[in-house]
Amino acid sequence: MKRFALNSATTKRWPLPELVAGCVDAGVSGVGLWREDLAAYGIEQAAARVRDAGLTVTSLCRGGFFDVPGWFDENRRAIDEAAAVGAPVLVLVSGGLPAGSRDLDVARAHVGEALGALVPHALAAGVRLAVEPLHPMFCSDRCVVASLGQALDLADPYPPEAVGVVVDTYHLWWDDQVWAQIARAGRENRIACFQVADWVTPLPAGVLLGRGLPGTGCVELRRFREAVDAAGYAGPIEVEVFAEEVWSRPGREVLDEAVAGYLAHVA
Amino acid sequence: MKRFALNSATTKRWPLPELVAGCVDAGVSGVGLWREDLAAYGIEQAAARVRDAGLTVTSLCRGGFFDVPGWFDENRRAIDEAAAVGAPVLVLVSGGLPAGSRDLDVARAHVGEALGALVPHALAAGVRLAVEPLHPMFCSDRCVVASLGQALDLADPYPPEAVGVVVDTYHLWWDDQVWAQIARAGRENRIACFQVADWVTPLPAGVLLGRGLPGTGCVELRRFREAVDAAGYAGPIEVEVFAEEVWSRPGREVLDEAVAGYLAHVA
Repeated sequence: MKRFALNSATTKRWPLPELVAGCVDAGVSGVGLWREDLAAYGIEQAAARVRDAGLTVTSLCRGGFFDVPGWFDENRRAIDEAAAVGAPVLVLVSGGLPAGSRDLDVARAHVGEALGALVPHALAAGVRLAVEPLHPMFCSDRCVVASLGQALDLADPYPPEAVGVVVDTYHLWWDDQVWAQIARAGRENRIACFQVADWVTPLPAGVLLGRGLPGTGCVELRRFREAVDAAGYAGPIEVEVFAEEVWSRPGREVLDEAVAGYLAHVA
Repeated sequence: MKRFALNSATTKRWPLPELVAGCVDAGVSGVGLWREDLAAYGIEQAAARVRDAGLTVTSLCRGGFFDVPGWFDENRRAIDEAAAVGAPVLVLVSGGLPAGSRDLDVARAHVGEALGALVPHALAAGVRLAVEPLHPMFCSDRCVVASLGQALDLADPYPPEAVGVVVDTYHLWWDDQVWAQIARAGRENRIACFQVADWVTPLPAGVLLGRGLPGTGCVELRRFREAVDAAGYAGPIEVEVFAEEVWSRPGREVLDEAVAGYLAHVA
């Protein structure tokens, strides 16, 4: 349980004070937060509430969306918020193709340039940027970074303490190169965040809210955990599930299922 | 227009006799057929109707689904049907994870073994098996072969005249390695079929019926055509679109749009 962390997206409708109390009660010591959580309660208040309860903030979601005008200032704010709330990592969902564009190469190159533009501020703030490759089904509209190898290539020009990657089982499980790329990520000291969700079908319309709690799908979750461990990662393991069915249930019930699934299928 | 071919899935509700007449009228000389087309009209009758109209059958869809009991006999029948209808290529959608399994490695190895088991019959029948990598969003339930590189690895042990691959823009557009793999496919003489559809979002529930006619989405279709050309492929270019919105319209209207989209965005 020492490494288990609840990403607040899993219990999207659980208000932060209840989430904090529920985690303490359940023996959970780490939480991944979203900027929406901070906006709802105020950054300082949210940070104090989490800290006073003895919880650790494992990551802040999310920066990125480099295809949207204003991305530079918005991401600098996100870095500041991560620092303010004590999150060592800012997860980046890099954005899709700009409206009307078909040029993936240009969009991907732009992600690399955006990382470079943000690195100085991230280093100064002590926040590590974590490039998250998303499942290729999100490539056009959410994230042109579609594989772990690609995320590592984008991170490569920058110091590992400034830019890492996210290993998320939901996004990467289909890739036969993922095991080699996790090993590479370890060698290059890039694993900044490890997130766990399961793959279940049929996918819902829009495909965003189709994830399953650990153990409810077909992903070799423990193999991923063993692979990141073997690559030298010893950090938190966030359960992060987006699913209407999960969101519709009481937060504590979902947390207990997330813990049980983690212990049975990940730990 | 010499290379344009209509895959009958694009006009799913257009009865074969009308499809044949429509293609002749529109100056289309190639059609990709489905086993369902043959079952509906009888293989010999369907073959005669297509042949008598002067059309070429560019491929038959589909064999595969090696995760289903009886796959060996079913695929032998599919090879026989391809030969009977004059299709040089049988497209293989290899199937997902067997029920209850999480072992992608085993499922993928099984696809390789299945190919080996079918090669003698395919060679004897003069039908080339074409392994189709599907988009990774279909990995669990339709096709564990999720990239062109993987399809080429699976084909590798077998003679190119027995086993090739399908290059389908819809399934491969997100992959930054696809250009190198298309070049490799050319060097290894494996490109058996080239299919074109566009990527449009949001995806519908179940994600199967979300494709767009050429030009309606974000795929660099012409870049794909130029890449397969540069790799030495000079065969037919099938427009293959699954989409409820497309299926709901008159076949001839859809064919005309497919041709227009092909000329504007692919040829």
